[in-house]
Amino acid sequence: MIVGVPAETAPNEKRVAITPAVAEDLVGDGHEVAIETGAGEPANYHDEQYEAVGCTVLDDRDTVFEQADIVLQVQALGAATDGIAPYDEGQVVVGLLGPYDITDTQLETLSDQSVSAFALELMPRISRAQSMDALSSQASLGGYQACLLAAEELPKMFPMEMTAAGTIRPAEVFVIGAGVAGLKAIATAERLGADTRGHDVRLEVKQEVESLGADFVELDLETEGSGDEEGYAVEMGEEFYAEQRRQMQRVVPESDVIITTAAIPGRPAPEIVTAEMIEEMDAGSVIVDIAAPTGGNCEPTVAGETVEHAGVTIHGPTNLPSQMSKTASEQYANNLQHFLENLLGEDGNIDFDFEDEIIDSTLLVHDGTVRNPHLEDGVNET
Amino acid sequence: MIVGVPAETAPNEKRVAITPAVAEDLVGDGHEVAIETGAGEPANYHDEQYEAVGCTVLDDRDTVFEQADIVLQVQALGAATDGIAPYDEGQVVVGLLGPYDITDTQLETLSDQSVSAFALELMPRISRAQSMDALSSQASLGGYQACLLAAEELPKMFPMEMTAAGTIRPAEVFVIGAGVAGLKAIATAERLGADTRGHDVRLEVKQEVESLGADFVELDLETEGSGDEEGYAVEMGEEFYAEQRRQMQRVVPESDVIITTAAIPGRPAPEIVTAEMIEEMDAGSVIVDIAAPTGGNCEPTVAGETVEHAGVTIHGPTNLPSQMSKTASEQYANNLQHFLENLLGEDGNIDFDFEDEIIDSTLLVHDGTVRNPHLEDGVNET
Repeated sequence: MIVGVPAETAPNEKRVAITPAVAEDLVGDGHEVAIETGAGEPANYHDEQYEAVGCTVLDDRDTVFEQADIVLQVQALGAATDGIAPYDEGQVVVGLLGPYDITDTQLETLSDQSVSAFALELMPRISRAQSMDALSSQASLGGYQACLLAAEELPKMFPMEMTAAGTIRPAEVFVIGAGVAGLKAIATAERLGADTRGHDVRLEVKQEVESLGADFVELDLETEGSGDEEGYAVEMGEEFYAEQRRQMQRVVPESDVIITTAAIPGRPAPEIVTAEMIEEMDAGSVIVDIAAPTGGNCEPTVAGETVEHAGVTIHGPTNLPSQMSKTASEQYANNLQHFLENLLGEDGNIDFDFEDEIIDSTLLVHDGTVRNPHLEDGVNET
Repeated sequence: MIVGVPAETAPNEKRVAITPAVAEDLVGDGHEVAIETGAGEPANYHDEQYEAVGCTVLDDRDTVFEQADIVLQVQALGAATDGIAPYDEGQVVVGLLGPYDITDTQLETLSDQSVSAFALELMPRISRAQSMDALSSQASLGGYQACLLAAEELPKMFPMEMTAAGTIRPAEVFVIGAGVAGLKAIATAERLGADTRGHDVRLEVKQEVESLGADFVELDLETEGSGDEEGYAVEMGEEFYAEQRRQMQRVVPESDVIITTAAIPGRPAPEIVTAEMIEEMDAGSVIVDIAAPTGGNCEPTVAGETVEHAGVTIHGPTNLPSQMSKTASEQYANNLQHFLENLLGEDGNIDFDFEDEIIDSTLLVHDGTVRNPHLEDGVNET
């Protein structure tokens, strides 16, 4: 197989879909790897490193698409507002395809191109697929980075210190949403010595939060049915969120840092922190709203921007993992490698085995048909 | 006594010399506190908080100087390139006065104003003075902030992680100079899980570095006489630094992050990391040169700027503690409070007791005379 890796085109995307280490393994398994020149540069992987492990570095982007049997990308649709990459008929595309936001036009184009497009976001949460779960690997990095961003910007120290000049009280960090990103934010805040609290509507994560050394903020809410069978949060009714907001009113004002991570696959993020609550916080406090790309958990959040409300800084980052481009690319490329191993099977040929839950769940478009598997299974439908 | 606190005027100075908590204590001790309106704002302390503890908030800056018996400042000379604050005859001024950089003209002006100016930088390193040691309290915050800056910017994670997508190796952090700032940078990097190494010409700090969990990088150098009687590093000969650089060549290229903190009071910082060494580092690596204000420990460092050399980002921050304005102001105000307690004595009146090492060492100008105590004692003279 010829594996092609074009440079990423989405704005501020610094990750690359393949690392020299993964490329070396693929070449060792008898595949060819063709990579666009400079594709690894934003992640500090250089053309020479790819060449050294046997990749072909191509100057011309289109040639990558022409040659490849399988195209590996990070953001597969990239900045393609005015079109989709020049995929070839029968080509396999693997990447983050934004299956919840993809337009019908884009789906039709992919289907017209007759490509087989795998959306890694639709990876089933089964143990066999953990090593391919790019959402998790990247969310973990996002949680870490969100915590560092807040720590660096807060006009207070995170850790408690007993100094000759007096005791420094620890910063109060509150993490809302204890999925992969939230748990990593909690772990990082704890590492730095902050007084950390976590909250999630799914009471079953309480123990995980506490095992990291943080306190779990339990609200007096009816939370049955708040997680789906895969452990993702599901959308609750507006009455539920209203009550959640009312109860949050007592926790938010005491916090120096709030990191919100409450996203629901395929749905707008619930608004949990209101402008009114933020007004009760100390000036200089910092919020990082990781749910910004789907609307944010905080009323004033603007995706891709940093805004201020009542002296509180609210970050709405849309691609935190990209800021840690080297580690993020490493993890992502490893995810892809495991995915390819499963897809290619023993003989190294592509095997569209629809009995395989991993293939079936992630294959968005195939053979001229829009499959959209996440709509079919109905798990995330209200 | 009337204690006056003007707003800071140095560019990017966000600290304030007094916090509401310290002001409350001073008022409780029978003093008056007059503060310029908005002086605490950059550190997120508001006029109302000062008023609530009994301070007078004054709209007019000059009135603060007119009323005060004692003026408390952070950077006492502020941005005063074209002059010095309108101090009154006999007034006591306490702050960071930059005694090593102060010009003869500035000293003469202070002397002509007949003020008594205390430079906190000249605090003797005796146990009784630890609670007043602003250099230490601020350096510690600087070391913490430098580490966070590097962690946030590095395209790799600091901690080692075992994930489903493979093992993430920890970042390699190398801290040069294990004084207060260096030790705090080491402690913070260790907290975050980096693989941390420290180096100092003073072998006696080896144990402190190792007690934080880091490795001590020992160079094969003759280091006798590298620390003065107060524990500060002293300037060594050029031959020594040449050998140090030669041996650094093997450690620097392996590092993802370098934090340099090797400053010598009253002398230019030694150049330890050359441009050539940096060229051997991985692109994307990050250097934070805390010694930037006195010339920096790295060849490409520019004070107050962020430069790039061979793909490595080199920060030359000049006031890291100010970025943590709230904690830094708290610690600084506590330092001042302890200093005032010593200066004022039991009866609450100023006591210029020259037998008191603290008074004697820090009193830069008094009674129309330029004392310049650090020049007299000769400790830092070559």
